[in-house]
Amino acid sequence: MNKKVLTNPLSGFMELLPSKQMLFNKKSDIIKQTYETFGFIPLDTPVLERLDTLMAKAGEEAEKQIYQLQRGNKKLGMRFDLTVPLARYVAENYGQLTFPFKRYAIGKVYRGERSQAGRFREFYQCDIDVIGDKTLDLRYDAELPAIIYTVFSKLGLKEFTIRINNRKIFNGLFKELRIEDNSADIMQAIDKLEKIGEKAVKIDLEKCGLESTVINRIFDFLNLAGTSDEIIDGLAQLGVNNNQFNEGLDELSEVISLVRKFGVPESSFKIDLTIARGLDYYTGTVYETQLNKYPEVGSICSGGRYDDLANFYTDHKLPGVGLSIGLTRLFDQLVKKGIFKTETTTPTKVLILPMIDDFKPGLELASILREKKIATEISFADSKMKKRLGYANKLSIPWAVFIGEDEITKGVYALKNLETGKQEEVNLEELISKIQQ
Amino acid sequence: MNKKVLTNPLSGFMELLPSKQMLFNKKSDIIKQTYETFGFIPLDTPVLERLDTLMAKAGEEAEKQIYQLQRGNKKLGMRFDLTVPLARYVAENYGQLTFPFKRYAIGKVYRGERSQAGRFREFYQCDIDVIGDKTLDLRYDAELPAIIYTVFSKLGLKEFTIRINNRKIFNGLFKELRIEDNSADIMQAIDKLEKIGEKAVKIDLEKCGLESTVINRIFDFLNLAGTSDEIIDGLAQLGVNNNQFNEGLDELSEVISLVRKFGVPESSFKIDLTIARGLDYYTGTVYETQLNKYPEVGSICSGGRYDDLANFYTDHKLPGVGLSIGLTRLFDQLVKKGIFKTETTTPTKVLILPMIDDFKPGLELASILREKKIATEISFADSKMKKRLGYANKLSIPWAVFIGEDEITKGVYALKNLETGKQEEVNLEELISKIQQ
Repeated sequence: MNKKVLTNPLSGFMELLPSKQMLFNKKSDIIKQTYETFGFIPLDTPVLERLDTLMAKAGEEAEKQIYQLQRGNKKLGMRFDLTVPLARYVAENYGQLTFPFKRYAIGKVYRGERSQAGRFREFYQCDIDVIGDKTLDLRYDAELPAIIYTVFSKLGLKEFTIRINNRKIFNGLFKELRIEDNSADIMQAIDKLEKIGEKAVKIDLEKCGLESTVINRIFDFLNLAGTSDEIIDGLAQLGVNNNQFNEGLDELSEVISLVRKFGVPESSFKIDLTIARGLDYYTGTVYETQLNKYPEVGSICSGGRYDDLANFYTDHKLPGVGLSIGLTRLFDQLVKKGIFKTETTTPTKVLILPMIDDFKPGLELASILREKKIATEISFADSKMKKRLGYANKLSIPWAVFIGEDEITKGVYALKNLETGKQEEVNLEELISKIQQ
Repeated sequence: MNKKVLTNPLSGFMELLPSKQMLFNKKSDIIKQTYETFGFIPLDTPVLERLDTLMAKAGEEAEKQIYQLQRGNKKLGMRFDLTVPLARYVAENYGQLTFPFKRYAIGKVYRGERSQAGRFREFYQCDIDVIGDKTLDLRYDAELPAIIYTVFSKLGLKEFTIRINNRKIFNGLFKELRIEDNSADIMQAIDKLEKIGEKAVKIDLEKCGLESTVINRIFDFLNLAGTSDEIIDGLAQLGVNNNQFNEGLDELSEVISLVRKFGVPESSFKIDLTIARGLDYYTGTVYETQLNKYPEVGSICSGGRYDDLANFYTDHKLPGVGLSIGLTRLFDQLVKKGIFKTETTTPTKVLILPMIDDFKPGLELASILREKKIATEISFADSKMKKRLGYANKLSIPWAVFIGEDEITKGVYALKNLETGKQEEVNLEELISKIQQ
């Protein structure tokens, strides 16, 4: 026959086989449910936005990555994150929202990045944000990492570190050193510290025109190490005499103390002075999260505080703080590393196999089980038993129920555990309780 | 200040305030859970597809509506339904799927239709399909409407009718009347019957070049009325001597008898011989579903049987049957008619209000409640009690818990029902049981 159309998904677009899809949904449901138990409200905004709306907030890099389209004379784009739509939404619905507005969103975003292993062009972000009206308490900067800690624990992740910093510290230091006009280039150089090491970064900083005394003071700062408390002491002793620096230090110190109060164990968070995160966007606390054993995965949950979420869209001042889990990439990596393991290929727990043509008794049982939220299928009696059981085995359905003349006469069911092979005669009550165990 | 960027969503794109979003999610969860209790496997495919893939299956009308984009030298499009991606997926993963492959999908699709009240350009479809390998039992043509009946009942809809027909009956009749070459135009004319009436349709059919004897035979057929059984008898007595017609009649008769066996009450389904649904796509059973009291809403759930789902993508013969709920439009209409009513604005059930600066006792209570899946927020003690309670009232949070020195000393909580205003001192156990009631 003729050549057919290509059937693989586009490169950079995740598409899963049933068992992995079931696993993905399970993880995504855990995130959703945890966000909800903390009282966050769900929000679902369109995938398409006016290109203007996206451009108003996108940095140069994001702009290039936007999937653009034209409809009539309108320029549209696919959203590249969930924060821009949130800003637009809060600006649009300001009068009808209750502040602090706590919302979560789990949805697909699009970035036309160059194709690369482990990078996705369509991926799920799972965001929580708290938006204040004019002001927003610093406690939220500590509550969000506590929520993320709960989420990751429930996802079965153990060894991860939420790294916390405050952008005001950087900004204040740069002002003190009178290098704030050059801060974008300098930050870019510093961002590479983990990748290329101190020596190479120093050379880059020289290229930025920095004198060696200034470079040394930057590294006095970057090299502060130890526990969170030791770093805070170290920062206080640096002798930086700048208001913004000191404000950032106070905030960081307060956030760290609150994160402890919110119950995050010392082993799961730390101060990391090298975290900058999108120089123009965040204005206070910033976060990144890494898997201790797999730093190569990169940050699996990032975010921060912004003074004014929606300044492009409204004159209301809306400070906010948010965190975002990049679920698609996280899932992909943890499946590959064997940390997330598939469990089941179908929701079905019971396959009912009528042994006679009349499938009414099977249907009645199915209805009862489904009302108890036990997923149930019926296999029709027109093919051989081996083939019918083969379907259950291929899908790893755990239970089979046979219903024949005998069973109907006696008012019982033949219940078979397809894992152990054990079969027994049970009444309805026993059947339900065995399956629910 | 200056003019800001537009903040309303694009026209034809639904965006909901929190209380409606909560309601939408509740309805969508009911659909999802019901599909799963029937053993359907979730599937999530990319929103973007190769334009070729979409074009291979799109009719002329759909083609015009595809949101197209170009990335490098690749032409892409946003999916306009969930069936085309399913076809591509099954073709791609044929060797790794278990047949009959039962999958559900709930996702956004895109159609650049002309803007019109009640029409959406981005909308959710909630699809179930069963795909067979080479063959697929007719019982699935009856099980699907039974599932949809369960879904709609659980959604709180009472008066709806699943209309069932079989395309082979039409096709056979057209062959018998030797008008099959003209069938597309004729079908189009017949499709307007409910809107413009018999007289006007007859004039249109004359314009198609049909003789009055042929038109009369078509109307003998279309005017068959009565119960499902009466229509089936009427069809048998029409004296059509065509194999395809008789095959269609047998199938329809069998499907109707099976739909009864599957427990769908007689009042919720009927044969409707005027249903055609996309002449080129469906090959057997076809369905449409209407709300009895609101026919103007149009079909809220449509679908049918297709002999060969993925013939553009694979040489494997994959017959299937599917049904799709257009949730966005259904939701929009039922909210406007007051049938779907908002209940809550936040997942939060409890607002904990510490009366002292130390919020640790509040946090401990919150953790316990959240572990029991009771959504809980903590209000911090830095603003006035009136303002803190105002937040709970605006969001209609049902319960408040006050924790002050007194309560901590006595080991109790002051629990207030914010609907009745009643406040009482309770211990932890009582608190949980009252809230869970």
